[in-house]
Amino acid sequence: MPSAVSSLAPPADVHPGGEDPIQRLLAPRSIAVVGASNRSRWSRTLVENLDNCGYQGRVSLINPRGGIVHDRQAFRSCGEVDGGIDMGVVLVPGSAVLDVVTDLADAGARSAMILTSGFAETGGEGVVLQEKLVQFARARRLRLFGPNSLGYLNFADRVLAWATPIKAPSRSDGVGIVSQSGATALFMANLAYEQDIGLSHVIATGNEADTDGTAFLDHLIERPETRAIALFIETVRNPPAFIRSAQKALARGKPIVVLKVGTSEVTARSAEAHTGALVGDDRVFEGICRQYGIIRVGSVEELLATADIAARTGVLRPGGLAVLSNSGGICEIAADRAEERGVSLPELTAETAAQVRELIPGYGTPHNPLDLTGGIDPANCEQIVRLLSRQGDYAAILCPYYPVPTEQDQISERLSALHSGLARGLSDEGVPGLLVSYTSTYQTELSRGIVERDRLPYHACGLDRAVAGIAGVMRWSERQRSASPATHTEPMQASLAARPRSEHEALLVLKSFGVPVVPTRLATTSTEAAAMAAEIDKPVAVKIASPNIAHKSDIGGVVLGVLGLDNVRRAFDEVVGAARRHHAAARIDGAIISPMRRNGLELFVGCTRDPQWGPVIALGLGGVWVEVMKDVSLRLLPVDAVEVKRMLGELRGAALLRGQRGVPATDLDAVADAVMRIGAAAAACGPDLRALEVNPLWVRGDKVEALDALFDWEPEASSPDPA
Amino acid sequence: MPSAVSSLAPPADVHPGGEDPIQRLLAPRSIAVVGASNRSRWSRTLVENLDNCGYQGRVSLINPRGGIVHDRQAFRSCGEVDGGIDMGVVLVPGSAVLDVVTDLADAGARSAMILTSGFAETGGEGVVLQEKLVQFARARRLRLFGPNSLGYLNFADRVLAWATPIKAPSRSDGVGIVSQSGATALFMANLAYEQDIGLSHVIATGNEADTDGTAFLDHLIERPETRAIALFIETVRNPPAFIRSAQKALARGKPIVVLKVGTSEVTARSAEAHTGALVGDDRVFEGICRQYGIIRVGSVEELLATADIAARTGVLRPGGLAVLSNSGGICEIAADRAEERGVSLPELTAETAAQVRELIPGYGTPHNPLDLTGGIDPANCEQIVRLLSRQGDYAAILCPYYPVPTEQDQISERLSALHSGLARGLSDEGVPGLLVSYTSTYQTELSRGIVERDRLPYHACGLDRAVAGIAGVMRWSERQRSASPATHTEPMQASLAARPRSEHEALLVLKSFGVPVVPTRLATTSTEAAAMAAEIDKPVAVKIASPNIAHKSDIGGVVLGVLGLDNVRRAFDEVVGAARRHHAAARIDGAIISPMRRNGLELFVGCTRDPQWGPVIALGLGGVWVEVMKDVSLRLLPVDAVEVKRMLGELRGAALLRGQRGVPATDLDAVADAVMRIGAAAAACGPDLRALEVNPLWVRGDKVEALDALFDWEPEASSPDPA
Repeated sequence: MPSAVSSLAPPADVHPGGEDPIQRLLAPRSIAVVGASNRSRWSRTLVENLDNCGYQGRVSLINPRGGIVHDRQAFRSCGEVDGGIDMGVVLVPGSAVLDVVTDLADAGARSAMILTSGFAETGGEGVVLQEKLVQFARARRLRLFGPNSLGYLNFADRVLAWATPIKAPSRSDGVGIVSQSGATALFMANLAYEQDIGLSHVIATGNEADTDGTAFLDHLIERPETRAIALFIETVRNPPAFIRSAQKALARGKPIVVLKVGTSEVTARSAEAHTGALVGDDRVFEGICRQYGIIRVGSVEELLATADIAARTGVLRPGGLAVLSNSGGICEIAADRAEERGVSLPELTAETAAQVRELIPGYGTPHNPLDLTGGIDPANCEQIVRLLSRQGDYAAILCPYYPVPTEQDQISERLSALHSGLARGLSDEGVPGLLVSYTSTYQTELSRGIVERDRLPYHACGLDRAVAGIAGVMRWSERQRSASPATHTEPMQASLAARPRSEHEALLVLKSFGVPVVPTRLATTSTEAAAMAAEIDKPVAVKIASPNIAHKSDIGGVVLGVLGLDNVRRAFDEVVGAARRHHAAARIDGAIISPMRRNGLELFVGCTRDPQWGPVIALGLGGVWVEVMKDVSLRLLPVDAVEVKRMLGELRGAALLRGQRGVPATDLDAVADAVMRIGAAAAACGPDLRALEVNPLWVRGDKVEALDALFDWEPEASSPDPA
Repeated sequence: MPSAVSSLAPPADVHPGGEDPIQRLLAPRSIAVVGASNRSRWSRTLVENLDNCGYQGRVSLINPRGGIVHDRQAFRSCGEVDGGIDMGVVLVPGSAVLDVVTDLADAGARSAMILTSGFAETGGEGVVLQEKLVQFARARRLRLFGPNSLGYLNFADRVLAWATPIKAPSRSDGVGIVSQSGATALFMANLAYEQDIGLSHVIATGNEADTDGTAFLDHLIERPETRAIALFIETVRNPPAFIRSAQKALARGKPIVVLKVGTSEVTARSAEAHTGALVGDDRVFEGICRQYGIIRVGSVEELLATADIAARTGVLRPGGLAVLSNSGGICEIAADRAEERGVSLPELTAETAAQVRELIPGYGTPHNPLDLTGGIDPANCEQIVRLLSRQGDYAAILCPYYPVPTEQDQISERLSALHSGLARGLSDEGVPGLLVSYTSTYQTELSRGIVERDRLPYHACGLDRAVAGIAGVMRWSERQRSASPATHTEPMQASLAARPRSEHEALLVLKSFGVPVVPTRLATTSTEAAAMAAEIDKPVAVKIASPNIAHKSDIGGVVLGVLGLDNVRRAFDEVVGAARRHHAAARIDGAIISPMRRNGLELFVGCTRDPQWGPVIALGLGGVWVEVMKDVSLRLLPVDAVEVKRMLGELRGAALLRGQRGVPATDLDAVADAVMRIGAAAAACGPDLRALEVNPLWVRGDKVEALDALFDWEPEASSPDPA
């Protein structure tokens, strides 16, 4: 795992003059392989890859002893190379790397790809060595790739600077892969070859000492050959840049699919509020994916299949999935998997059904999923697919079918007619269609030829991965079509006139931001309390008012549902007494009197600052849902109302929002508005706010009220916090 | 999809004399292919398969025109075949099938495999035709296979009676497949070949007119060559037989993995109780899987991978998973997937870690998952694996690694040394170890040879499916080790003295079964009610008592938390008044007075009768959990306490059982005992009970009480139900 981030910021643009420095790095005009040696398998493979890929630039080999290396004359030093060096590929041992990079810089190279390992990934001295290297490179305006990398495969520009044997898929456009793990990049490239998934790039970023994965992500968003991006992430080194890239991808309609590993939770960040415990690294990243429409997956196979599908279909129109197969069993598997993944299978209209009925064998039934049956006439396949395409309910059509023959003896006229009939139907309309093998399989030269010849929109990823992929692309498409793309802006640095130090003040601050709050009054004596309760004339809550007591109910500082003057007076004395017993030094302002709210739903809203990603907001159902089930949805702040409604929809308990016995359905707009304003209040508090919690935010139909609120601050230097 | 179950029960044993009739069907002494024809591709393929598989019996071809078919002399009729026919394979058109089957019976055949389609699966006349066929066959004691099938592949006994080209995996033991879909069976066989997964049988049961999938399941449980069974199920035709087989498999330690399609919910079965809405076909089947330790999966790939792993490992010892790889990225993916699947990755002990540290490169760190690093010395692999095996915490060891070379140019000495080093370590100890390709891939002759030569415990299913499979096998192993295997017995047919017709009576019945119930008293006047409440001297519940009103709170028939004599009197009048208003004809017995129970957890227990599977019990958390979230666990009745505790553990809200603010942790034994007794009460009510609901069953720590109960009965013929 890469580690030890360089403490230096990378230069904004090391190559002034308008040229994209990343493109220059990925398609250098000439390459020198430094440390090329006949004894090194890596060296030989790298040079073979460069020789065989159609690279148009010059490849020079450098070996201090000169001589013939890999059947060509090697140069003794970088300086000897005629016409200069654009990029050096460095294969020398770790201890010699700095010298070689110095030579490269002296020879005018713009970048150095360092494949050598033994740097920051090994800890200790490796970290120091890497740091030196970065300092040197930045001083000399030399861009570094790696170290500890396998290189990159730039299929789009035909530069395969890669140290292991590699086979290219048929197409050099489609999916662009950026991976922090070299091994994982290699497996993805191998799988893409096996299944013949078009690749524009495979970039193994190694230790990312100078140029990190986000820089390549950002570059690929702009490349037309890269129609979808597959990321394998262990660590995001530059969160703001990552967010900017995610926003750009969303704006440009370029799908990003990500496999991020490491789900360990970061410990609580705020001692006084408990939002911290709900906000682990992985949960924030999950929230970011949902916020920006990044498709998150759980395996390498799904990563590649989903990116491939996204690359081929682009944004899908609204609607469900149509499934055609020649097996009833497969139709049922498809239906189950689709339901599980939240993909709808709209039924055929009566009109479509009647037309399809004429084209399938008499014992078949026209439904979606559609079992064409083993007896289907291949001549009818094209028209059947077209009929489905024309029914406006479908965003995509999936045909799980026999795989394209990989060996000669699997070829049959009938199968060929079926495949090409389906393909003709799938190709014509605006509805993307996929022909997919039943199970995950592979391709051969033979099948590649057939796919090419018959223009089959063929995926060898199997039904299961295909449905998962389509579900992901549908979610992304929905996010793309969404009217209000969330924008991430820096939080306002405005500070409040004074920090609210009590529940009463906290609710007043929220009110000033337009958040509906329960009417509360501060009683300083039991007689005042009784008078206030009498005005309310319904059961009230009596809560201790003290700037020093955050969790009031834990110390007996809250009495709920109090009715009757004597009872209110008693409750006042009770909460004040409890506060004095538990916190002798506390400043006690009295007690808050507010009307009870019942028969509603209680939500939890917590805002905090993630050390990596910045201000975040957590939204959940209150009580056990948040305390025991940890059922919250997270986002970076700010959020707009559309985003808040998406968050509500993600909750495991979301069904409760649709109402229950005695509780009407929740007005989502009213909740969204209140939550958005709470987020804005938190953002306005600036970086000294550790957490802002509204717990509960009470909702009944369209009535929304914050019943309790807590601001938790970093200690002020001038007035130390007595808590 | 197969449909139209035959109304005739199959004969208990059509072949008296002690021989297993299914084995005789799967390994006939001689086979006649009726309808063999040079023009039929199916016919040719079938005969080729039989010729090439090493089948020891005689294969005769029957064609009414005689002549040379598939290069041999055909007989004109079944009667002409010398030495008789044990099984006929029928390829003639549907209209001729009955005649052919008659000929076969006349010729002394014991079974007929009917590959022809156009029977029950086409509806209408096909159903009638199939029914005739079954009646004839049973009358003549001829066992039928199919119709509408591709046949079976009996690798174990070398009988490939199968109509499409097929390739055999290297091993003819391991997984036995039973599939109701012929196409799905074929894809599974193809995938098993591609990944070289050992198969004992592939049985495509077709329409199951006579012999159903459960009969083959039951047979495979007894076959030593079949070490795990993979089922593809659309419909279980004989639920009691399926349960008996599941029990047998559990008792004999034979793992069953199932992919069952069709998750549609059956509509409510009991008008008065709402348990019905919670009990869909699929939910009951899910409950059965958990009850009998059947491993349920969601895709064909997972079905095969899981069965393959189960076949190779058998029952695992308790413990977690150890993961070794040469890539940090892969280690992290494995850790995430394992966590997601509920598989623990116990850390290395200090002792193991210290020993491992000596065997991996200096920059590596000894953890689980263990990144051996790219620089690992192959000579150390064996010992590292052994060190992990010896640490008692691991049930299995998984090595996601480079795939075994499929082509010559992938072979390297180093890779070979790594693979065989790992394999030596994995083979020796009692802890099963798997070497698995990083991603799902395929095998070639070359890789098969290497696997054989180096005895690699190699799975080409990829890391993702392997982790899923191991998780499934771990769950099954846990069920295997469980002290108290649940047994399914027929419900007692004892009936109660009288049907309880009110809540008060219902609670008394439960009490007689040993279920703890809240003390309740029936008040017939408001004065009585007040007196009873005064004795309780705490807030009480006042609930209408009427045999005609089931959902009391819906009509205002319940007032909760009543304190004070006047309030109790008022509540009594209120509920009686409400009952009169809503249900003028109702018999009103008065009102039940019972103490309120608070600060506990409320459970829901519902027993009902599934039309397919019989008496079932549903257990969930009460209130919104069951009403809105539909969060229940289901089982067939009876259940013992161990099973109830498993049910509790399956609930999405299970975390609530561990306690929450103001509510202590639940005593699971106390709950299990009460729920088991409720199930026993339901079973004792006999088949006229539609539903028994206890809602809520209140729990606080070790205090358990049924607070409300409802028996819902089929109408009695003698006294029609006024409701």
